[in-house]
Amino acid sequence: MKVGGTSYRSIWREAGEVRIIDQRWLPHEFRVVPLRSRSDFATAIRDMWVRGAPLIGATAAYGVATAMALDPSDAHLDETWEALHATRPTAINLRWALDGMRAALRPLPPAARAAAAFVRAAEICDEDVEINRRIGLRGLEIIRKIAATKEDGTPVRILTHCNAGWLATVDWGTATSPIYHAVEAGIPVHVFVDETRPRNQGALLTSWELGEHGVSHDLIVDNAGGHLMQHGEVDLVIVGTDRTTANGDVCNKIGTYLKALAAQDNGVPFYVALPSPTIDWTVRNGLAEIPIEERDGREVTHVQGKLADGTIGDVQISPDTTGTRNPAFDVTPARLVTGLITERGVCEASAQGLATLFPEFAG
Amino acid sequence: MKVGGTSYRSIWREAGEVRIIDQRWLPHEFRVVPLRSRSDFATAIRDMWVRGAPLIGATAAYGVATAMALDPSDAHLDETWEALHATRPTAINLRWALDGMRAALRPLPPAARAAAAFVRAAEICDEDVEINRRIGLRGLEIIRKIAATKEDGTPVRILTHCNAGWLATVDWGTATSPIYHAVEAGIPVHVFVDETRPRNQGALLTSWELGEHGVSHDLIVDNAGGHLMQHGEVDLVIVGTDRTTANGDVCNKIGTYLKALAAQDNGVPFYVALPSPTIDWTVRNGLAEIPIEERDGREVTHVQGKLADGTIGDVQISPDTTGTRNPAFDVTPARLVTGLITERGVCEASAQGLATLFPEFAG
Repeated sequence: MKVGGTSYRSIWREAGEVRIIDQRWLPHEFRVVPLRSRSDFATAIRDMWVRGAPLIGATAAYGVATAMALDPSDAHLDETWEALHATRPTAINLRWALDGMRAALRPLPPAARAAAAFVRAAEICDEDVEINRRIGLRGLEIIRKIAATKEDGTPVRILTHCNAGWLATVDWGTATSPIYHAVEAGIPVHVFVDETRPRNQGALLTSWELGEHGVSHDLIVDNAGGHLMQHGEVDLVIVGTDRTTANGDVCNKIGTYLKALAAQDNGVPFYVALPSPTIDWTVRNGLAEIPIEERDGREVTHVQGKLADGTIGDVQISPDTTGTRNPAFDVTPARLVTGLITERGVCEASAQGLATLFPEFAG
Repeated sequence: MKVGGTSYRSIWREAGEVRIIDQRWLPHEFRVVPLRSRSDFATAIRDMWVRGAPLIGATAAYGVATAMALDPSDAHLDETWEALHATRPTAINLRWALDGMRAALRPLPPAARAAAAFVRAAEICDEDVEINRRIGLRGLEIIRKIAATKEDGTPVRILTHCNAGWLATVDWGTATSPIYHAVEAGIPVHVFVDETRPRNQGALLTSWELGEHGVSHDLIVDNAGGHLMQHGEVDLVIVGTDRTTANGDVCNKIGTYLKALAAQDNGVPFYVALPSPTIDWTVRNGLAEIPIEERDGREVTHVQGKLADGTIGDVQISPDTTGTRNPAFDVTPARLVTGLITERGVCEASAQGLATLFPEFAG
């Protein structure tokens, strides 16, 4: 998508090296950095210069390719797998990308590995872009139908939570892809961006993305969405997901469930955009079966941002001794979800709904 | 309540002067300051050294008394009314206190006014404390019943939003009064404190209050309460209110509605604690009739707290150009409210329920 009028992906090759946007400085600074060694890639993944499952996978794939260009031996391939896997061991896409790269490269003669690895890494990126593009086209139809009910020029008002944007993928994003496609189709939209405490991905990333691409939006605190829906100011909610169960329960950033409740209470359609690889076909009851990570309480007691002098720092908002709870995700039961927007189409959030689109997985 | 083991009210007379807690520095610094002139009182109200409707009223009453001690003339009484009223002209309690003081003092000979004014200001404080004490005793019974269903020593887990604590009143608070009374009765409680963006009154004030009084609590982001309720970790929600309608709709800090939805979805009782003067008997439909103030967007884009060097400052969390929406309150429909805890007892959130307790107002 666009940054200052120029089109970017979140990872790309240029002048013989892999480049990324160092997302730690957004929205205050737009820094593009090259990743030239295995340790550069490991640092970028571990220290969250890049984040979002699809982008982590793509970065790992390019990390393997870059490592193969430096030393294509079997030993180095294994070392690279280990070194990159250790950066974020619970990231499923990371392991998926590393396993896939090693399986593809191992049978090749070492001299052929680097070139093949760069081809495969580029394919992984292109596949992600294509999945998100299709999600966008499916979601575009939902937005188009709402637009048809409005007077010309009146925007379709969409609320989103967290960053399921292009910065979390290679391009388009998931929840944002229908929005970007609507903009490209000339449909007026306005986005309400939940700030998404505790890590403020909405404020830091989604509002930056939308602003750079020229999409009308307002940042709101996480408390405000219900009020806006009560007053008829939201036409549609679209969020992303980290994991969707076989029965359509949606695990996503903490607070998503509260917005789904408000959407239901006010008759606002609540859609979830997801690439099908994030469906966990082994889980049927999201609330009972998905363990929810509790993160460091410092995320609750402190808020990071730009200080008065322009540097990045944080402020402590609570007393020194206050305890915290910090669950990172919640589960929105399928009954609150209007529909799932996948690359194969839109379906009901239910086992039956998913079976219509993914018969090969439904059990 | 207690601060570092010593009992305090939020406003009191000592050594011939009125003293308050300058709440702007909480929770990072506990500063007691004297208010010695009319302009001291005006500054304290206008610049929010004190906040909360009951405390603003009490402060204004003491401001009139202090002014009368300096110059008890009719002209000065009128000037004081004007000067203090102008500090926060939309605060209903401020006007109520000023009107009451002037009406009581005007018939008196000037030489008798200061003494009478200090007596009346002290009465206003004591009346507020008594109302909140009664709310606490009524709410205590609700907590006691839940405690009786638990194994000995297992805490009753209570979620609250914003600061309806003793810092907003003269003592006890409204939503916190049942909690403090439960603690005094030896019932184990644990409080989940919503941080309450955008102004973080939960993080800044409620967690400080509870910590200083020795009440077990955890600070959470506003997004987290629904997840905790889904997992059976909340037994009860108690919040305050700025304004309750004659049919039981509850206007309170933005985000209250979302917690009420989650409480209903999970069968968690949702109570509102309120002094009866905050009931607006002229309004029947809160959602349609109560105008909701939109505040400065800087509250959304910036977060204030303690910087690394110990000073108070803020960080900007969003891009420089991001727009905002910042509604300050929302309305929780009566259908989501389990009961209203008033100084006269607990009633259903409905016109009929309120009529049983307040027959003289119900129309």
